[in-house]
Amino acid sequence: MKTKDRIVADALLLFNEQGESNVTTNHIAAHLGISPGNLYYHFRNKSDIIHRIFLQYSDHLRKSFTPATGSANASPAVWFHYLDAIFYVMWEFRFFYANLNDILQRDPELHLQYLAVQQELTVNLQALLREMNAQRVLAIPDEEIEPLTEVLRMVVSFWVSYQSAQSMTPRISQAVLYQGVARVLLLLKPYFHPEQGLELATLMTHYQALGAAPSDPFHK
Amino acid sequence: MKTKDRIVADALLLFNEQGESNVTTNHIAAHLGISPGNLYYHFRNKSDIIHRIFLQYSDHLRKSFTPATGSANASPAVWFHYLDAIFYVMWEFRFFYANLNDILQRDPELHLQYLAVQQELTVNLQALLREMNAQRVLAIPDEEIEPLTEVLRMVVSFWVSYQSAQSMTPRISQAVLYQGVARVLLLLKPYFHPEQGLELATLMTHYQALGAAPSDPFHK
Repeated sequence: MKTKDRIVADALLLFNEQGESNVTTNHIAAHLGISPGNLYYHFRNKSDIIHRIFLQYSDHLRKSFTPATGSANASPAVWFHYLDAIFYVMWEFRFFYANLNDILQRDPELHLQYLAVQQELTVNLQALLREMNAQRVLAIPDEEIEPLTEVLRMVVSFWVSYQSAQSMTPRISQAVLYQGVARVLLLLKPYFHPEQGLELATLMTHYQALGAAPSDPFHK
Repeated sequence: MKTKDRIVADALLLFNEQGESNVTTNHIAAHLGISPGNLYYHFRNKSDIIHRIFLQYSDHLRKSFTPATGSANASPAVWFHYLDAIFYVMWEFRFFYANLNDILQRDPELHLQYLAVQQELTVNLQALLREMNAQRVLAIPDEEIEPLTEVLRMVVSFWVSYQSAQSMTPRISQAVLYQGVARVLLLLKPYFHPEQGLELATLMTHYQALGAAPSDPFHK
């Protein structure tokens, strides 16, 4: 792994574990065992590192929510794929969601990129739901696709913040984020086509079980 | 109006218009045309004023979401009441929602009060949905009442934050908040009992129209 990539990986780890505002470039360099000068050779400042992490975030969103085509939409595998991808983005970039508005407001360039990515995601999610409708997996009234997509994006984007407000000592564990995934499924549940062959209950049970886990078996 | 009440009213106005973090006790005193000393006679500091505003917030939540009883639940009036109450709390205390986690994290006493009020609200909302079920207005599966209540609280609590992330120059207008109210109704829509006599479409049209308003006719 090249030094540049190691810096990004370590920064992401530290941001997620300690909160982005508590981590400086010096902390990152110390954690890697390199000199601050070496870090500055690769990145001008912390914001530069965040931009690089943001590219990973955008890339994940772009790849994971491209709509499946045709009958693939009726397979449970595609639902596990989408719902796991929601979990992944919430977990892997939880520092970002924990402090979304602060991070965006102090970095207009990042905010612009964020808006572009969200716009692209919105288009993808709407296409995805329309394809699910076409395949008779979902039966969402046309005029509800847009507002429903918005609510789903909102729930995913602010689930971490919401959890932080709900406790004096919030802990953003994997279980807590799986509860968010289960809520996304809950919101879609009324729209599942009555004749669809998917085992919706199986999906629900799966994510509820992960949300109820007292410990985090997959915690890094 | 007593000076103490005028301080609270003016503080709320300034917090909402300029953001709580941009307003000091000196600004509030100047806006009222009183001396800082006079303000300090009534309140120890800004946090003291926020606590007083929080009492109004709690009071509103407590009074507005007490479940209606019996057949009152089948009347459109009760829906206008609840949905207008959601708008009111988002609009009247928008400074609070704009910065919820910051305000709570720097004031543990307020955070404890917030958690107590949210707990009370949760109990009320669940009772309210169960009563709607009993009156055959809604048909929410029992096991979904709890997670659905949570999602509804979340959408209301983070709608302002979500909107702030969605634009480089966000403006938290009444229309934007009515869009949030319309989303709450959208989330409940699939659960309306097929035989209920409510004109759900009328409700939806009403709040969508308010959400689409280019200007704010009711803006203070």
